[in-house]
Formats: sequence, structure tokens, C-alpha cells
Amino acid sequence: MQALIQELRAQLGADQVLTEGDLSAWEQDWRKRDRGRALAVVRPGSTAEVAAVVQACIAQRARQPERPVSIVPQGGNTGLVMGSTPDASGEQVVLSLQRLNRVRALDADNLTLTAEAGCILATLQQHAQAAGFLFPLSLAAEGSCTIGGNLGTNAGGTQVLRYGNARDLCLGLEVVTAQGEVWHGLSGLRKDNTGYDLRDLLIGSEGTLGIITAATLKLYPLPAAQLTAWAAVPSLPQALALLRLAHRHLGAGLTGFELMGQFALSLADKHLPQLRVPLWRQSPWCVLLENSDHESLTHAREQFDRLLEAALAEGCISDAVVAENLAQAQQLWQVRESIPLAQVAEGLNIKHDIAVPVSRIPDFVAATDALLTQAIPGVRLVNFGHLGDGNLHYNVQAPQALDAAEFLRQHEEQVNHLVFESVRAFGGSISAEHGVGSLKLAHLEQHKSPVALGMMRAIKQALDPLGLLNPGRVLRHE
Amino acid sequence: MQALIQELRAQLGADQVLTEGDLSAWEQDWRKRDRGRALAVVRPGSTAEVAAVVQACIAQRARQPERPVSIVPQGGNTGLVMGSTPDASGEQVVLSLQRLNRVRALDADNLTLTAEAGCILATLQQHAQAAGFLFPLSLAAEGSCTIGGNLGTNAGGTQVLRYGNARDLCLGLEVVTAQGEVWHGLSGLRKDNTGYDLRDLLIGSEGTLGIITAATLKLYPLPAAQLTAWAAVPSLPQALALLRLAHRHLGAGLTGFELMGQFALSLADKHLPQLRVPLWRQSPWCVLLENSDHESLTHAREQFDRLLEAALAEGCISDAVVAENLAQAQQLWQVRESIPLAQVAEGLNIKHDIAVPVSRIPDFVAATDALLTQAIPGVRLVNFGHLGDGNLHYNVQAPQALDAAEFLRQHEEQVNHLVFESVRAFGGSISAEHGVGSLKLAHLEQHKSPVALGMMRAIKQALDPLGLLNPGRVLRHE
Repeated sequence: MQALIQELRAQLGADQVLTEGDLSAWEQDWRKRDRGRALAVVRPGSTAEVAAVVQACIAQRARQPERPVSIVPQGGNTGLVMGSTPDASGEQVVLSLQRLNRVRALDADNLTLTAEAGCILATLQQHAQAAGFLFPLSLAAEGSCTIGGNLGTNAGGTQVLRYGNARDLCLGLEVVTAQGEVWHGLSGLRKDNTGYDLRDLLIGSEGTLGIITAATLKLYPLPAAQLTAWAAVPSLPQALALLRLAHRHLGAGLTGFELMGQFALSLADKHLPQLRVPLWRQSPWCVLLENSDHESLTHAREQFDRLLEAALAEGCISDAVVAENLAQAQQLWQVRESIPLAQVAEGLNIKHDIAVPVSRIPDFVAATDALLTQAIPGVRLVNFGHLGDGNLHYNVQAPQALDAAEFLRQHEEQVNHLVFESVRAFGGSISAEHGVGSLKLAHLEQHKSPVALGMMRAIKQALDPLGLLNPGRVLRHE
Repeated sequence: MQALIQELRAQLGADQVLTEGDLSAWEQDWRKRDRGRALAVVRPGSTAEVAAVVQACIAQRARQPERPVSIVPQGGNTGLVMGSTPDASGEQVVLSLQRLNRVRALDADNLTLTAEAGCILATLQQHAQAAGFLFPLSLAAEGSCTIGGNLGTNAGGTQVLRYGNARDLCLGLEVVTAQGEVWHGLSGLRKDNTGYDLRDLLIGSEGTLGIITAATLKLYPLPAAQLTAWAAVPSLPQALALLRLAHRHLGAGLTGFELMGQFALSLADKHLPQLRVPLWRQSPWCVLLENSDHESLTHAREQFDRLLEAALAEGCISDAVVAENLAQAQQLWQVRESIPLAQVAEGLNIKHDIAVPVSRIPDFVAATDALLTQAIPGVRLVNFGHLGDGNLHYNVQAPQALDAAEFLRQHEEQVNHLVFESVRAFGGSISAEHGVGSLKLAHLEQHKSPVALGMMRAIKQALDPLGLLNPGRVLRHE
């Protein structure tokens, strides 16, 4: 392996090839579930240097096939499924894209932004906004995550309802292949039917089929106004009725529809009382709605008022508040975003990031709640998520009397099994937005169709026959 | 081959395996450029029967490898690039999906429609509308084309600006693989990050990677009102300025932005005088705009008036008319849709379906017009298309004095070369929405990046190692 390290130092400069000191920022996963050991952390500064790293690793494979070196691409290392940290073998090179952080171009008439993989998501949002545009990808980790990681994992977030996932926001990619070649697929084209959709195949492949080095992203005109409301909703079927009304009244203006269960909000109220959670005591569910209007604040408010009046009349909400200003709107969003923190304060818990068809959410929650409370008396269910996308963070907190760590040891497998079987019965997904990584590999094998898994394995074998790129993520290394 | 025919008759019933009589509906391509000869036309009635056809062909391959039978999937056979008709070998089975024409489900709360591949596009539009929803895929052939063909070719059309291509309108697929297995990938999920994006890989693969048998499609609430306007625009940069204004004023309400050149409109006026083409004499370009409003007709009209006033004030339009009723709106769309017909009436011509970044359209048109008129004095350029998507139908009509057929013989290759080189120089695509088929195969090899072509070939080899599915389309059969 020493020959490889020397080659990497020669290519990138010695100070961009880290093998000593504290490498925990690259070796430790975001949720601190596991820590691997890297052969080296390399920080290339250009696409050509990324290609050089891949080629150096291919050469090392030829020299020493019995110790197969591999590459773990890494962006902001904020993933939740252990997909971007090395394993314990000491034979994986962490390839950090963080130094590829230039915005290459903004094309106002084409409504596109071209940026390198290491750009921080929030930086891109600000860059777009400064030019009068919206880049709508938005999620909790946006201050640390990178666009390369967002694309590698097909990140979701809070505006998927209107703008789609990361995949929907990308028009073209620049990629270093497993052969160390560069695919110059950056494109500002909205229509291009010249062959297979390599772009969407690479997006969401979690660094296992190629290394994304840059992307051309879609921009939208900045809305003239954004309004946020918070409504108390008597039941899940009524939450769906509200969603239906919101689609009709707001059309494409509906950019957020977040559901929160009463117990989830009680935790926020308990652990973060300064947030002043509205309306939660009076209702089993609350919904946060966002209306983005291209016309004016007045128009946005009229639209919202009309929607909420109709919803009150139909009985699908029992009460509602509309944020009077930006600060109030941010405070409502903060309540929504604080739920994971409040959960941590309450103690260890079992997280799921599932999706079912929107129409099946009420039955899914009723059935799965019943299964769990029957199996584990006193279990506490933290339910919140992006109802408009059918995506729930369906989390399970230990019964009040129990030690949380002990609860996890005893029940994590059982809880996962029950929840995932229920997801399957409702035609859902066991990973809506977080991806597979190494954490959900075994679950994927149990729950994905064998035909689909077969096609995935064939594609992996075709594009990365050496198994050089992020082996053991998404698919088991064979 | 007789054993295969017998097996197919046993599986599907003798009357669904056609080998005699007039097979031109399946053997002749839509533009009548070529006619192949099918070993048989088979019309399975279910997904299981489609799988049985594939398995029977695999068995025939094993029996007679020296005469390799293959399968050409076919929907409405309205494609423009000879991708769905058999070659001249007499060894290809045309697999028509037309009998798979059931709408399987409409889920109002999930905003999805599940339909089989052989459903006619217009039928699905009507089915959605009857339930109060919009299925926004819309194109000239919608009365004959099938949703399977739309997905197989990633069809575009007139509403891509707002709703995207066919790929953007599909949440899940049911597919028969090249191994004759069924991938049950129908999904009503808006978020699902469990592995590679097989759906988008299959969509647009023109039947070369699998046979789409059903799909789950996205629906939208029906807009409350739709308004159409027609504006005279002094130049292409001003057309872009109008597009910019329209994005700002109408937001997601902007569902159509079609550009038409003066010569294109003069042909419509000459050959279809009953259409009464508006404003075309006074301006080198006209634009058709569509505003879909979720609020009301009054609101739609206010929005449009405000936009057109601003556009007049900024000088990006010189005049405009807004349709007063649905009949007038349809008449404006009819003018737009009639241009290909008017071209046919004027004589044979060379068609291109190209895309460049929206911002580069004015320079692309200026540069390419100059190249062509210099190379072929008197050549007449028919320019129209979806400006909002950067997609032009950049067509070339013979000089007035010349015989059109003779012109094509002499100049088609030269014209294609000049246009495609210009497309390449502007970072564009040589096939924006029509696909590759066999017609553009050679051009694709010249213009697509070798790295991308290499990945495409590896994927084809991985998913269809026998080369059973639509060989010689998209990629050369090796």
C-alpha cells in the first residue's frame, strides 16, 4: 500500500493525503454509530485529480490484488446510513470532494447553476438567491452537507412536494468513472433523448457507480412572498382532506405540508420550551403549511385565508395560525425541525424513514401503531414528516419506565421487522430519503424485489467490475 | 423458426400471432421512410403473456443461435426515428402492447393513475379529467400514441416547461426483463431511495433494456382556468426577455411557451388559410403563451394582462391577442400544431429536433442560419418549437426553385452535418424529444461522448446479454 500512498502524494501534494493525526471528521459517521479506519484521506482539488486518485487505486489493485484497495467518496459526511465512512479494514481510501467547491456558472436565462460537488448546499442557496433565484433543495443539514452528497444520495427535504428530490433538480453531471475516466455530462438541457439516462442512474447510487464531481442544477424565480401557517387537525384522514384542499387552493404555491403528531410535539414542548409550540395540546395532529406566491404577500395571504376558511368549514382543521412575519414563520419551521433534537433529549430511539402512498398514510399509521403497542406495551411513537410526499419519520421511543439503551438492545430488531413488514404490506419504501449505505443493506436484501436487486447487481458489475467504488454500500460486496 | 411460431400460438392463441396478410400497420414506420418485415406480430393480452413471448424467444435462440430471433416492442407506432418497426431480416418479432390497455387504478389522494402500456395517451388524459385531474403529457400524436411508447421514448410535448418530460410524470413501472422475468416496480411513492434508479433507466431506453407493461403516473389538480395568448416578438433576444417576464409573472402558471418563425407561419398561412394565422406578417417571430391558473378565469386574465402590459412597455412584444374563449384558444394551438402539415404541403424537408440551453437559442439560430444560407443559397429555414425548454424543430426546406426530393438527395447529409456540428458547438442535443431509434444511430455515435457510449454499452450488455430486445436501436448491435 505504501506505493499507493506515494503515488497519491505525488499526484495531489503531500498535504492533501492524510494518513496520521485525528481523522475522525472523515472516519466517524454523522450519527456516531460507528467509526472506521481509512488507509488515507485524500483531498483532490480538481476533477483531473479525482480521476488520478481512481487510476492510482486501479494500479494498486493490479500490484496487490490480495489486499483490494477501494474508494469511499465523501462530501459533508452528514449521511444517516453509514454510506460515506470507511470500514474497519484500513484498506479504504476516503476521497473527500470538499476542495471541489467552486460555483462554475449561473445562467439566468437558462435558469441553471453549475457547481462542483464540494459546494455546501446553503452556499448554493445563497448564491442563487443573490442573483434573484431559488435553488429549492432544503434540508436540516444544509449548512454542512454538500451538493455532491445530496446528489449521490438523491436527498429529499422539505420542498419535495413542489420541486421534487435532488434528482429532479439536476440537469447534468460531471462524473469520474470507476475506470478513472471523466464523463463530461454537464448539461443545461431540459430535453435530451440521446440514449440511456446515465444522470439519474448515477444520482442516488451513493458513490457506488461513479464519483460526481460537478452538476448543473435547476433554478426557479424567487417567489414574491412566502407564508407559513400552522393548523390543528383532528385526525389523519382530515389531514389528507386538508392536503387535498391545499392542492386545489394553492396549486404549485403549496411548497410545504409537514405533519407532526401530538407526542412528537409534546417532546419539543418539554425539552425546548422556549420554542412555544402552538396548538399542540388541543389536537392529535398539527400540520405546517407553506404557500410560496409569485404575485405578492397580499395575494398569498388572501389565498391562505380562503384555504383555511374552507378547511374550517369542512372540519378538517379545528384551529390555525398564520405567521405574521418572517420571524414567526421561521419559528414555526424551527418547531418542526426541532423534533429530532427533542427526541435525542428524551433518549435513544429507533428511527425509520419510510414512505407509503399518500392515500394510505392513515391506515398505515393506525395498523403499525397497533402492531407495536401490542408487541411492546407502553412503547411511545414519534410520528412526523412530509405528508405531502407520503414520507414519515416513524420513530419509536422506549416506554417511559425502561432504560432506552436496554430497550434498543432488546427490541430494535423486532421493531424494525414489524415496521418494515407493515411498510411492505402498504406498498411502501423502507428508505424514503436517507438511502441505503451499509446500515440498511441487510434490510434492502429482505425487502427489495429479487428481480430489481438482480438488475442492480448487473449494473454495478458492468460499471465497476473491480468493485472499486464504495463496496458494501447499497449492494453487498461479492 | 416454426417451433417458435407454434409456441407463441400455444401461449397467446393463434389469432394473436399474425404472420400473414397486411402487416403494414406494424411493419411500416410512421413517417413512411422504411418498411421492414416481421417474423410475426404478436399481441399478448397480459403481462404474463409478454413474459411468455420473451421466454419463447430465449428458447428459440437456444435452438437456433445462427438465426438470432429478436423482439421489437411496439406501442402506437407513432415514433419518428424508426425505433419500433422491424428490420428487413424477417427474424424480428414485433411485440405489440396494444391489447394491454386497462386503466388499473386512479388514487385521488395519492394523485396517481396506474395504467397498462397500451393505453392511448388521449384516453388517459380523458380518464384523469373525468375524475377532476390533469395528466399533463400532451403531444401531437396523443390520439394514437400509447403511454408505453411515451415512456419508452421519454416523450416531451407542449407542457414540459411546467410538468417535465414523460420521465418526470412517472412514479413506477412494471417491466418484463430480457430474461423474461417481471419486475413489479409499480409504485405510487414520491420518495424511495432504496437503490439504483431502474425506473428512469428503463424510461427512454426505447425498448432495448426491458419491455414496459404498465406504469404509475402523476396527476395534478385540474387548473381552474387556462388562457392562451399570441404575441408578435421583434427578435429572438426579445423572445427570451418575454420568457423571463412570463416566468416572473406567472410562476408555475406558465404551462406553454411556443416560438414560431415568420417563414414557418407563412407556410401555415399559405397551405391552411382557413386557420387565419394572427400577427405573423408584422413580425419575424410569434410566441404562443399558455397560463394555467388554479384560482379563476378572472385571475388568469388579470395576470396575463399585467404580463403583456409589462412586455409591451419593455418592448419585448409589439402586439398581442388573448383568446376570448376556449374555441379561440384551440384555434391558436391549431396554428402551432399545423406547421408540420404545412411543411409537408410545401414539400419534402429535412427535420431536426434539437435542444440547446435556452439562453443560447438566439446565437444558435443566428449562427446556424448563417452557415446554411452560405452553404446552400436560397435554402428556407422553418423554425419553431418549445422555446421554454430550449427545444427547436429546426427544419430545412429546399430553395424555392429546386425539386425537393433532389434537394434531399444532394444536401441531406451536408445539412445534418452543419446543423449537428452547430448543436455540438452550442452544447446541445441532436435529439431533444424524438429519441434515437435506428434513424439517428450513426449520428449518436459521432456526437455522444465515448465515455457515455461506453457506459451505455456496458449497461445494455449487463441487462440484455443476448441482445434480444430491439437490437440495433439506440446502440449498434454488436
